[in-house]
Amino acid sequence: MAAEHLLTDVCQQKVRFSEVDSMKVVWHGNYVRYFEDGRESFGKRYSGIGYLDMYRNGFTAPIVDMHIQYLRSLTIGEEIQIETSYVDDPAAKLCFEYIIRRTSDGEIAAKGSTMQVFLDNSGQLCLSLPPFVEEWKRKWLNI
Amino acid sequence: MAAEHLLTDVCQQKVRFSEVDSMKVVWHGNYVRYFEDGRESFGKRYSGIGYLDMYRNGFTAPIVDMHIQYLRSLTIGEEIQIETSYVDDPAAKLCFEYIIRRTSDGEIAAKGSTMQVFLDNSGQLCLSLPPFVEEWKRKWLNI
Amino acid sequence: MAAEHLLTDVCQQKVRFSEVDSMKVVWHGNYVRYFEDGRESFGKRYSGIGYLDMYRNGFTAPIVDMHIQYLRSLTIGEEIQIETSYVDDPAAKLCFEYIIRRTSDGEIAAKGSTMQVFLDNSGQLCLSLPPFVEEWKRKWLNI
Amino acid sequence: MAAEHLLTDVCQQKVRFSEVDSMKVVWHGNYVRYFEDGRESFGKRYSGIGYLDMYRNGFTAPIVDMHIQYLRSLTIGEEIQIETSYVDDPAAKLCFEYIIRRTSDGEIAAKGSTMQVFLDNSGQLCLSLPPFVEEWKRKWLNI
Repeated sequence: MAAEHLLTDVCQQKVRFSEVDSMKVVWHGNYVRYFEDGRESFGKRYSGIGYLDMYRNGFTAPIVDMHIQYLRSLTIGEEIQIETSYVDDPAAKLCFEYIIRRTSDGEIAAKGSTMQVFLDNSGQLCLSLPPFVEEWKRKWLNI
Repeated sequence: MAAEHLLTDVCQQKVRFSEVDSMKVVWHGNYVRYFEDGRESFGKRYSGIGYLDMYRNGFTAPIVDMHIQYLRSLTIGEEIQIETSYVDDPAAKLCFEYIIRRTSDGEIAAKGSTMQVFLDNSGQLCLSLPPFVEEWKRKWLNI
Repeated sequence: MAAEHLLTDVCQQKVRFSEVDSMKVVWHGNYVRYFEDGRESFGKRYSGIGYLDMYRNGFTAPIVDMHIQYLRSLTIGEEIQIETSYVDDPAAKLCFEYIIRRTSDGEIAAKGSTMQVFLDNSGQLCLSLPPFVEEWKRKWLNI
Repeated sequence: MAAEHLLTDVCQQKVRFSEVDSMKVVWHGNYVRYFEDGRESFGKRYSGIGYLDMYRNGFTAPIVDMHIQYLRSLTIGEEIQIETSYVDDPAAKLCFEYIIRRTSDGEIAAKGSTMQVFLDNSGQLCLSLPPFVEEWKRKWLNI
């Protein structure tokens, strides 16, 4: 799969007290936020497809599919690394893969993926990539 | 304070697994959701000032002050009662008081209050009550 | 897949204001809570494998895999039905499938699945089903 | 009040997409997390009374009172500064005051306060400060 990962960003986070459940581990639903933090950081590094770019261009990109595998638990105060990779796809979709590692020893806590589609101003599904995304791909992927 | 409570609603909730922290008690921030559930239920019973009514009339009512006192902890699976009371105020504000009780024994887990102001379509603060709120007061409070 | 769904529960929820994002639709991460609400309701109906049963028997059942497909968006105030079905599996796992429907018209908003494993008191992975789960299967599935 | 603020920490955060509500501003309940981030950062700087210190010493410090005033709204992507100040109190309590500012222009978005009490291992309320907190005060406040 490595070949597809043309663009990758790694950001840091710290497990918050409020993210941990009664088992003293991060509640599984909170990994969705880590993925979102990852996309945010990715969008800052490879500028042009962040939330505000979408908004300015008159599009939204709702998530239509999400998959998370949990490998090791995380607990309060642990530092984590969120690795977010763009997965190129010829269709009018935006796909990312994620790896969340415990910073201290590099152990993988979770892996996952998300798929987004594009909706235009009137809420219609885009069957081809919006121009600003095409431009983003030319800029960062030379394709 | 009882005299001010002309309108009161009581609704039920159950403590969710994801609302409990590593101490196995409801995380203090989640009471904000219980208050919101209380306002929602209140707005359903005394119709006319719910979120959608605001929206239809071109207003929003952001919270500008919130106070919560925590008296007893709540844990997973406990049923709670959220008592939401309207506190009448001559100013252009919307004030509620809340009491959260454990259903099983009626013990008070928390008390609190919120104050909202009204913003019009252009985001300007309303110095007098919007007409639809005046109408709501006439309907439910005869004032 | 219907053949596997020997046990199914349907519960109701209402979309909360705080669950909706800036696009005025339920934030995709909040469906994780709906699935949890579904398991909770399922566990109440088919008693014996709820969170407290696990706890009393000295086990925990962390989620190791979650998949969500988003088909239609949901917005503030909409009533939803969460259908939670047990998927029998010979391995030492606990698998559920979910369908979330808008109550008003029955349209499917999301589908998903979760897989849980069992950890004993010392945090060790159980390679066979804990006795209390075997008993639960005999009781509700006659197997 | 400035005289009481013997110890202050300032940390940075960025408003997350998932923290913003359908009005496109940070949902009022999410400020509770910002305060918690503030206490966490404070505890890191003035070490000795963080969550893990409490835990190691056999105490917990639940919040018994919280007050938040909302002055200006915050929106997606804005950077914020969380200023957390220790408010000394002769009683067996832990009190903090918070100021949340928009980093770009220094405007105050919210102010607030929290009060915590100490519970010992058996869940009993401490009527005097636990020794490790006394020690912390000697270390950082010379009192």
